[in-house]
Amino acid sequence: MSTENFPSDFANLSSLQQKLLHELRQNSARAVMFHQLISEKMGLNATDHKCLDFLNRTGPVTAGQLAQLTGLTTGAITSVIDRLEQAGYVIRDKDPNDRRRVVVKSVPEGAARISPLFQSVAQSTLQIISQYTDEELQLILNFIRQCNDMTLAEMNKLKEE
Amino acid sequence: MSTENFPSDFANLSSLQQKLLHELRQNSARAVMFHQLISEKMGLNATDHKCLDFLNRTGPVTAGQLAQLTGLTTGAITSVIDRLEQAGYVIRDKDPNDRRRVVVKSVPEGAARISPLFQSVAQSTLQIISQYTDEELQLILNFIRQCNDMTLAEMNKLKEE
Repeated sequence: MSTENFPSDFANLSSLQQKLLHELRQNSARAVMFHQLISEKMGLNATDHKCLDFLNRTGPVTAGQLAQLTGLTTGAITSVIDRLEQAGYVIRDKDPNDRRRVVVKSVPEGAARISPLFQSVAQSTLQIISQYTDEELQLILNFIRQCNDMTLAEMNKLKEE
Repeated sequence: MSTENFPSDFANLSSLQQKLLHELRQNSARAVMFHQLISEKMGLNATDHKCLDFLNRTGPVTAGQLAQLTGLTTGAITSVIDRLEQAGYVIRDKDPNDRRRVVVKSVPEGAARISPLFQSVAQSTLQIISQYTDEELQLILNFIRQCNDMTLAEMNKLKEE
């Protein structure tokens, strides 16, 4: 979020509250930029990367199902699958349960190429976490969970507008 | 980050640590998706939105300077500025200090259109923060700051690879 877009009554915040809001905004920006960098390293754009994420969670699905899951049009999803296939992250294959249906599935070699990009950040995250007591971690967990639920609720409000 | 890409020795984590890692991953995903939604609402793609963010922080700059700041090529930045200008977020104007130079600057009306999109999430964030004591907020601030610094360091490592 962007503190410079905050309502003017936010000027009454304590220095600590202002610092935290600033750091949360930075956190959001870092996540977006990290995601973009990983996508670039994968030779994908952010939408392709996100569709691959969905596919990794669902297992093999048809192009139509993937369009529905992601909210993209069937035209857009075809281009996404073409790029993912060309970059070697997915293949189109016949559904073993229904040979007339073509499904898209992710390729283990693709996942193996992505995994190392996350290993270092995972180790570093764990190193930070290990500095805190269980009681402190529980407090942080509650806070992050509240923020995540709130962001989802705010997105749903925005979508309805 | 993605816990499914974590090294296998991460299986030894406590339930609390695993929950926090999961929630941090969710936090990152939410930030990316929130950013995408806001960009869509603005009629921009994520890169355009990010360049506008840079421009709002720097004030008027030349296209070449903006390319340098964002890491984009001069070709790519020209397209970005074209789209931002057409969508009414920036204008190209003569530099008052050097009339031979053309600078890009953001338009107040553009900022006024973006601001309301952030107001509700800002209010909701403040509502969450108000539930915590100063001591708790300081702990959360330290944790988020550590994560932000770490992510930047990891990005710099990734860029060098």
